[in-house]
Amino acid sequence: MKLSELGERKLVELIRKWWKGDGRLEVGVGDDAAVLRMGEERLVLTTDVLFQHSHFPPGTSPEQMGWKAAVVNLSDLAAMGAEPLALLFSLALPSETDLRVFRRIMEGMERAARKYGAALAGGDLSENEEIAIAGFAVGRGRRILRRGGAKVGDALAVTGKLGRAAAGLYILTHSLPVRSYRELVRALLEPEARIREGQILAAEGATSAIDLSDGLAANLWQLARESGVRMVLERIPTHPLVERFAREGRLDATEFSLFGGEDYELLFTIPPDRVEEVRKKLRRVGRELSVIGRVERGRGVAREVGGRLLPVPDRGYEHFRKQPQSSSGGLA
Amino acid sequence: MKLSELGERKLVELIRKWWKGDGRLEVGVGDDAAVLRMGEERLVLTTDVLFQHSHFPPGTSPEQMGWKAAVVNLSDLAAMGAEPLALLFSLALPSETDLRVFRRIMEGMERAARKYGAALAGGDLSENEEIAIAGFAVGRGRRILRRGGAKVGDALAVTGKLGRAAAGLYILTHSLPVRSYRELVRALLEPEARIREGQILAAEGATSAIDLSDGLAANLWQLARESGVRMVLERIPTHPLVERFAREGRLDATEFSLFGGEDYELLFTIPPDRVEEVRKKLRRVGRELSVIGRVERGRGVAREVGGRLLPVPDRGYEHFRKQPQSSSGGLA
Repeated sequence: MKLSELGERKLVELIRKWWKGDGRLEVGVGDDAAVLRMGEERLVLTTDVLFQHSHFPPGTSPEQMGWKAAVVNLSDLAAMGAEPLALLFSLALPSETDLRVFRRIMEGMERAARKYGAALAGGDLSENEEIAIAGFAVGRGRRILRRGGAKVGDALAVTGKLGRAAAGLYILTHSLPVRSYRELVRALLEPEARIREGQILAAEGATSAIDLSDGLAANLWQLARESGVRMVLERIPTHPLVERFAREGRLDATEFSLFGGEDYELLFTIPPDRVEEVRKKLRRVGRELSVIGRVERGRGVAREVGGRLLPVPDRGYEHFRKQPQSSSGGLA
Repeated sequence: MKLSELGERKLVELIRKWWKGDGRLEVGVGDDAAVLRMGEERLVLTTDVLFQHSHFPPGTSPEQMGWKAAVVNLSDLAAMGAEPLALLFSLALPSETDLRVFRRIMEGMERAARKYGAALAGGDLSENEEIAIAGFAVGRGRRILRRGGAKVGDALAVTGKLGRAAAGLYILTHSLPVRSYRELVRALLEPEARIREGQILAAEGATSAIDLSDGLAANLWQLARESGVRMVLERIPTHPLVERFAREGRLDATEFSLFGGEDYELLFTIPPDRVEEVRKKLRRVGRELSVIGRVERGRGVAREVGGRLLPVPDRGYEHFRKQPQSSSGGLA
């Protein structure tokens, strides 16, 4: 059987079975990051690789490549509520790459590391036909957020507003003029990691979290599956600029905010009586909290529309991509 | 200017300049691994990537790919004297890869992790035209071995005997019959990481160490450069099977043991009065110690032959490769 017949999720399930757990691991294969117990500390470890052909749309600058390779890894730390410690990169480049391009990739990594407080600890250089950047992030934390902790009765919430990155990708792949939608393209090419937000959620009693890399629908499915509950979506906090872009282009805004990926906001669950406190603390770091639904007994993901529950399909944002995003995803 | 005009070593020097140090890093870019201070502990972090076209000679089995991707990273921990904690992998594969091949790669990783006591903490899966495996190893240690600690008057030594992997590569690239030289090919495809040996060296007062990945000559140059000393090579402990292979094929055995890479033995310096104690401790884990020379005031690497000092060129084992090995190497 070919890997393409199985898909990434099944492969991760197989690896979970093949690779026996290890007593030192509190969290192993299958979450945003792995957690290793080390004395009183918890180390949080993650890796994500970006390939030029599938992860860097035409027009991505070298700085943006370096920045994004750092941020997708830091975002996994954010989803666990961890504090970043260090970043390493295995960077592969064509040998005819210009030194200035190389330098700008390094600068993008450096800016992201500085912004989010990670030490650039080094890496590995090699030749390859296309640019490929494998990033590794190490963090630490006391209370760790997992995908599997959502409880029946919890509120379902997200940081920020959704859909900008997917709309930005739509603009680039359809060669639309960028003009007044520069912010959408920038959201795609220069994502942010919600590090402080993740630490607030961990400290303030969130029960589960995941970063929105595959899209709200797909990431809701992952939380529901890992927690053994049903997620009921009551509203979708689409970004106002995405609303406007969709209206002008006669497009469906929820295609971007529900099925589009790479927003890198945090999706989380939390007891309802903690919501206002968390909202206040998030506001202090300039981030909005939107309650988008609730956690119920059951399985899967449903959307409440006019008092009725409709099923939400488990599909990621490959819809907007030539290269299916589902081909890349986390084992840890 | 193109990267190919600069070469990897110059690039690493540039990165060291561009990426400012970080107070938390005891060792940053430019050693076998980075060292991060974390309370009383020292975390040791490293990454190395292997690409099918340049790192897996034809005939490499999927288990061997997984094994080697783990071992090259663990070997960097060994060179620092660290205890392995965890391994992560960013694994890229063609989508038409057979599931059995995938499983066997995972098994190779699992065997290496088990043998050297690292927890398999997860990773990332993606599609690529050829197999590429970026590994990431985390270890810890109290006393850390660096490249830059060699002192004038130290003895220069290695663990084990040299040249098998390079002779194995010669056999494969020249399509020679393997027969009685199976061990040479196996040394190339299934290298070992000298973990316990590295821990003994760190505990017993070695002053510097590096793993022999690029070849004895190139790695001696790196130690000399980082320590600001001259390395004088008095003898080369070529493996007896390599001697025999070279004799039969009318080849120069030192081409394999001095300029061939991937032996993954440890090259280290140590005060002469510590040698016998270390030799005894290494013997207990089944490893030989060979004193191969001495550390002098000066620069570079010289070979003492018949009482005269001859210069040793700074070249790695690209000599035996179509794809120069110098295209891949450590930032950390």
